[in-house]
Amino acid sequence: MGDSKIKVGVLGATGAVGQRFVQMLQGHPWFELTALAASGRSVGKPYAEACTWVLRGDMPDHLHGVTVQACEPGLDCELVFSALPASSATEIEKSFAAAGYGVCSNARSHRYDADVPLLIPEVNPEHIKLLDAQKRKRGWGGFITTNPNCSTTHLVSALHPLHERFGVKQVSVVTMQAVSGAGYPGVSSMDMIDNIVPFIGGEEEKLEQKEPQKLLGRFAGDHIEYADISVSAQCMRVPVRNGHLEAVSVAFERTPSEDEFLDAWRNYRPLAQQLGLPSAPQPAIIHREENNRPQPRMDRMAGSVRGMATVVGRLRPDPLFDWKFVVLGHNTIRGAAGGSLLNAELLVALGYVGERKVAGALQTV
Amino acid sequence: MGDSKIKVGVLGATGAVGQRFVQMLQGHPWFELTALAASGRSVGKPYAEACTWVLRGDMPDHLHGVTVQACEPGLDCELVFSALPASSATEIEKSFAAAGYGVCSNARSHRYDADVPLLIPEVNPEHIKLLDAQKRKRGWGGFITTNPNCSTTHLVSALHPLHERFGVKQVSVVTMQAVSGAGYPGVSSMDMIDNIVPFIGGEEEKLEQKEPQKLLGRFAGDHIEYADISVSAQCMRVPVRNGHLEAVSVAFERTPSEDEFLDAWRNYRPLAQQLGLPSAPQPAIIHREENNRPQPRMDRMAGSVRGMATVVGRLRPDPLFDWKFVVLGHNTIRGAAGGSLLNAELLVALGYVGERKVAGALQTV
Amino acid sequence: MGDSKIKVGVLGATGAVGQRFVQMLQGHPWFELTALAASGRSVGKPYAEACTWVLRGDMPDHLHGVTVQACEPGLDCELVFSALPASSATEIEKSFAAAGYGVCSNARSHRYDADVPLLIPEVNPEHIKLLDAQKRKRGWGGFITTNPNCSTTHLVSALHPLHERFGVKQVSVVTMQAVSGAGYPGVSSMDMIDNIVPFIGGEEEKLEQKEPQKLLGRFAGDHIEYADISVSAQCMRVPVRNGHLEAVSVAFERTPSEDEFLDAWRNYRPLAQQLGLPSAPQPAIIHREENNRPQPRMDRMAGSVRGMATVVGRLRPDPLFDWKFVVLGHNTIRGAAGGSLLNAELLVALGYVGERKVAGALQTV
Amino acid sequence: MGDSKIKVGVLGATGAVGQRFVQMLQGHPWFELTALAASGRSVGKPYAEACTWVLRGDMPDHLHGVTVQACEPGLDCELVFSALPASSATEIEKSFAAAGYGVCSNARSHRYDADVPLLIPEVNPEHIKLLDAQKRKRGWGGFITTNPNCSTTHLVSALHPLHERFGVKQVSVVTMQAVSGAGYPGVSSMDMIDNIVPFIGGEEEKLEQKEPQKLLGRFAGDHIEYADISVSAQCMRVPVRNGHLEAVSVAFERTPSEDEFLDAWRNYRPLAQQLGLPSAPQPAIIHREENNRPQPRMDRMAGSVRGMATVVGRLRPDPLFDWKFVVLGHNTIRGAAGGSLLNAELLVALGYVGERKVAGALQTV
Repeated sequence: MGDSKIKVGVLGATGAVGQRFVQMLQGHPWFELTALAASGRSVGKPYAEACTWVLRGDMPDHLHGVTVQACEPGLDCELVFSALPASSATEIEKSFAAAGYGVCSNARSHRYDADVPLLIPEVNPEHIKLLDAQKRKRGWGGFITTNPNCSTTHLVSALHPLHERFGVKQVSVVTMQAVSGAGYPGVSSMDMIDNIVPFIGGEEEKLEQKEPQKLLGRFAGDHIEYADISVSAQCMRVPVRNGHLEAVSVAFERTPSEDEFLDAWRNYRPLAQQLGLPSAPQPAIIHREENNRPQPRMDRMAGSVRGMATVVGRLRPDPLFDWKFVVLGHNTIRGAAGGSLLNAELLVALGYVGERKVAGALQTV
Repeated sequence: MGDSKIKVGVLGATGAVGQRFVQMLQGHPWFELTALAASGRSVGKPYAEACTWVLRGDMPDHLHGVTVQACEPGLDCELVFSALPASSATEIEKSFAAAGYGVCSNARSHRYDADVPLLIPEVNPEHIKLLDAQKRKRGWGGFITTNPNCSTTHLVSALHPLHERFGVKQVSVVTMQAVSGAGYPGVSSMDMIDNIVPFIGGEEEKLEQKEPQKLLGRFAGDHIEYADISVSAQCMRVPVRNGHLEAVSVAFERTPSEDEFLDAWRNYRPLAQQLGLPSAPQPAIIHREENNRPQPRMDRMAGSVRGMATVVGRLRPDPLFDWKFVVLGHNTIRGAAGGSLLNAELLVALGYVGERKVAGALQTV
Repeated sequence: MGDSKIKVGVLGATGAVGQRFVQMLQGHPWFELTALAASGRSVGKPYAEACTWVLRGDMPDHLHGVTVQACEPGLDCELVFSALPASSATEIEKSFAAAGYGVCSNARSHRYDADVPLLIPEVNPEHIKLLDAQKRKRGWGGFITTNPNCSTTHLVSALHPLHERFGVKQVSVVTMQAVSGAGYPGVSSMDMIDNIVPFIGGEEEKLEQKEPQKLLGRFAGDHIEYADISVSAQCMRVPVRNGHLEAVSVAFERTPSEDEFLDAWRNYRPLAQQLGLPSAPQPAIIHREENNRPQPRMDRMAGSVRGMATVVGRLRPDPLFDWKFVVLGHNTIRGAAGGSLLNAELLVALGYVGERKVAGALQTV
Repeated sequence: MGDSKIKVGVLGATGAVGQRFVQMLQGHPWFELTALAASGRSVGKPYAEACTWVLRGDMPDHLHGVTVQACEPGLDCELVFSALPASSATEIEKSFAAAGYGVCSNARSHRYDADVPLLIPEVNPEHIKLLDAQKRKRGWGGFITTNPNCSTTHLVSALHPLHERFGVKQVSVVTMQAVSGAGYPGVSSMDMIDNIVPFIGGEEEKLEQKEPQKLLGRFAGDHIEYADISVSAQCMRVPVRNGHLEAVSVAFERTPSEDEFLDAWRNYRPLAQQLGLPSAPQPAIIHREENNRPQPRMDRMAGSVRGMATVVGRLRPDPLFDWKFVVLGHNTIRGAAGGSLLNAELLVALGYVGERKVAGALQTV
């Protein structure tokens, strides 16, 4: 591998997810943050002035004076992370890809495009090969990859090792989602003190019809054959700052015993972990044995890379399905910025960006 | 009906549920609170000294000086409401029934006894006739009736009109339960700030195997034939003070259309409402049309009798079952003390207690 | 008194405080709500469509179809309650007063104008006589009265009986203010879960320099001579939905004994209560004797008129001042809409509005 | 310095503060944890079984099987950290000191004994010399030192550099204290959802009369001459998990300008930092310039040693005192276990424990 770092930028750098990108890129071994971009009002201002920092831990000192640029090609970098809202992401991301940039997007805009990979490095690294068709078909010098919605990410991460061995057929999930998932200011405190809101716009549709089936689907050259999995989802907003908790019931093609089930989680060692991607937690899935875990405040930052693991527990037989269990994961780290970042690391390891390609890695997917 | 009120007592009067009984009995048109009983430490003390009042609204003035008695027969009343913990309820409640008292219990101790009614007046008033077998078999002058667990109460209340018309076969439910369900002090604030605990001891078993099937079962003389309904339950403790929210999916014998489904809820007018029991809310079920309701803080006190209604909303087709929806209800009012109180009112109306029997009412069940 | 009700309107009827006005005017014995007005986007829409109802208890049915009007004179009413933001209140309120309407405003815009009464009916009813100078000076057919800021209202309500007897010289107060004080959506849930924000823009200035001194000042014909009281204030935003809690230390001209102090609170019976104004709680101040009261969730709705009383407790000697204590009051009821409403009732009783004047009442102020 | 670590034990190792000791001793450069002791029920059990771990981050693996011992001399260590409740600490701590152990106690039992140092290493390291009188007077081979109460710690830490330069005369403080200060389970969630409790038993007395005056007092051979500072304190329990926020007003002997004031904080470099004690944060006091900081969730873990710094902000003139400001600090890290640990490090550096004495350090105090 070469020694120089790959220059990257953040689109939507002033929002909550944009700040997570900035935070996670600090001291990154492969990437160097060289461009901060945001929408109209912020352009031309120093980052410290344009951005109300909402994360614990301060804005990195050396970024205070960096001028926020417009979200247009011309940024001094090779790859951009997109924390843009869907409304503006659609066109902006295409313009960057057309101009030769790699785009790792957290927005939903292109997730369901046939030739755009919806990626979780542990789950479906081979989908990255859609980029060949994408570039060919669209005539782009660059490309767009996406990561799934925060609640999908942890659900599918927990299901993947089970699906590989036993074949997931049916999933019923009720999510209890943290407020940071709606950004800042996002959800009003008037709605979250002593309350739950049983509705999150668009969320159930993503879980039921769009994302798990694509993520667990089969790469077929220029598109993904969606997995034949039926999902029922109910999504709730709860008074928790970070960490989505999900109560899951699953029916399989072949019903595993409890030992087989736990073995699938415990011995899960997918490609991202084998490659040792810098942001890949070791292990990818943490199984808690206590009867009252995982819990958001105790487990959301779990993992060898903080906030990047998926935590599971409370495995019990299900009277209607085969098994039921509880999943927890950090929604703005692994479920958003960290997911995009790990995708970018996979792109590097497989040779789609920069020169750090791991010899032979692409052949493994 | 006669004019004099029926004398009642409260067992476990110093706890959180006991206080709800005391509060709801204030100014009751049929009952007069004449005895407060509690466990060892409190006996002999004035109620104001023995009891740390935790409800909004003060302890009724005239009770401050009332001496707390032991939980033993000899109390000056005809009927006792039991807010005892299960550990002591088992024997104490039997001793009162044997001594000729009617017992309306919120404890789980006798709920699953074959000859003890587990009652929701709207749902299964005919089960009250188990009392004839119970008295005969046990040789008691009095009797024991019970109300279900708080999360069961609202789930089954919402299901009952559907079960009558369409036949409920399968239910998947995830409950998000308020902290008051664990009593006072109950759940530590260390566990509930910025957190969810995905475990409540014994709760899932009650919902899956014991209560819905008995409540929706068929009266068969000296026992109940359990309904053949399969339930999957996951129970979560959430940082909400009052009001259990439940995300429910249901499969029916005969799948209703959306109109048929809503019609079942909207035109539900069961016996308790027909009889005009004082604590029966009119209507029993409130359907909210907004896409983000019911919510605990907005809807838990709903109903013409505050906190006694079951509130439903968010009806949507379910990819795995037939329909999914959200249920909310107050856990310590309708789900505990209020449930017992409504049972007592039914007992009166049907002639099992006092002299206010509604002519012909028993024939209707 | 005549029998017909006085027609009133609400300016800013779609916001959180506007909704409180609407809620409190339901079934009011003196006032009839005949006009709902709001800003640009809402004008012309039915109220049910223009307004996202955020209060517990539903929007009154008969208002659903009422068309929201613009905030301009021409409304069919005699008096308007203003729940406008300060930015638009300044000019709009003047235009209504000029057009002959009485204006009872919750906005801060005119609170500190020399000829505008800043009123708490229990505290300074005689300040209402400023209206004579106001009308004369401004040539208005109507007038403007204002109520103080929510945290001032309860602080000064608790101090008033003490000031009358012992002379308040110095006050140190730290407020812990509920999120509803910032309106809806107002404070982000990201800032209020597991957190306190030690800053509320403009609030400390109002408490230190502007409002207590005017409220406790002396009516001097065409202006108020401010009371000579020094106040130190620190204002905190806390994760409480409703109810401002304030920790207060006070030094007096003449130091009262504990008995004298408590007597002042307990035997407080100001004009508003003597007149029996419909929204005046009896008593105005509630003293709790427990060592852990008042508390927001237990005491914010206290009072014979729910949410209109000021609750005090924890009286203790202060090593630096004379005494210290804790004050609690509902911020959007008594501290906002209810304060304005009570002012309107005083205006009626004293003959400034309508024909319900209480004979001789004006002479008493 | 020698290379071998000093053996230490934890008394009360299963409670919340005991767990913090265990957590902070992991990988400590000077101390090795060799004994876990607790009260009756836990004795003889493996630590993993005796202790319900409540901190984020798991119990260290190698301690799972360690047998919990009784709180009696005989533990294999030189120094014990006491996380005992005051009720049992009084006698147990004396028995350890008599048996030759050094005791660093977080309990209040001996804080106010004339010959027991109440220590904050940054504030009054010279008080450590009381140990000579203590040992002589009591005939002990060991000794007892104590750290102050959590709310005192951060208040006095913020005041110390000001006191040194300007002389603190009067302090008015309102504390907003996190629930973890009451231990686990501690405060009921029923009291902390949507609420504040304006009472913490014994807390105001410690702040007003006992601790700041001793901490800022003068070492006088065999006792401390208390500083002549008057303090008014009101203590509130708020729905925050960790981090006490305090609103402070101060009057000085000599009123500093704003620049002088800020300079005192910014250039504060007390002995603990000069000595480079392992748990001493650099700097000791962090000043935030934003108008809405410090906040518990953003700032409680601040500092080069996480949770050990005191964070200050919002400096403003005070109409009654000279200046007012806001202080925040972690209550179970710096305010409890971390305070005791830093005291132990000071004891080592000054030669009272072990052999790591910093040459000449004792002469500096």
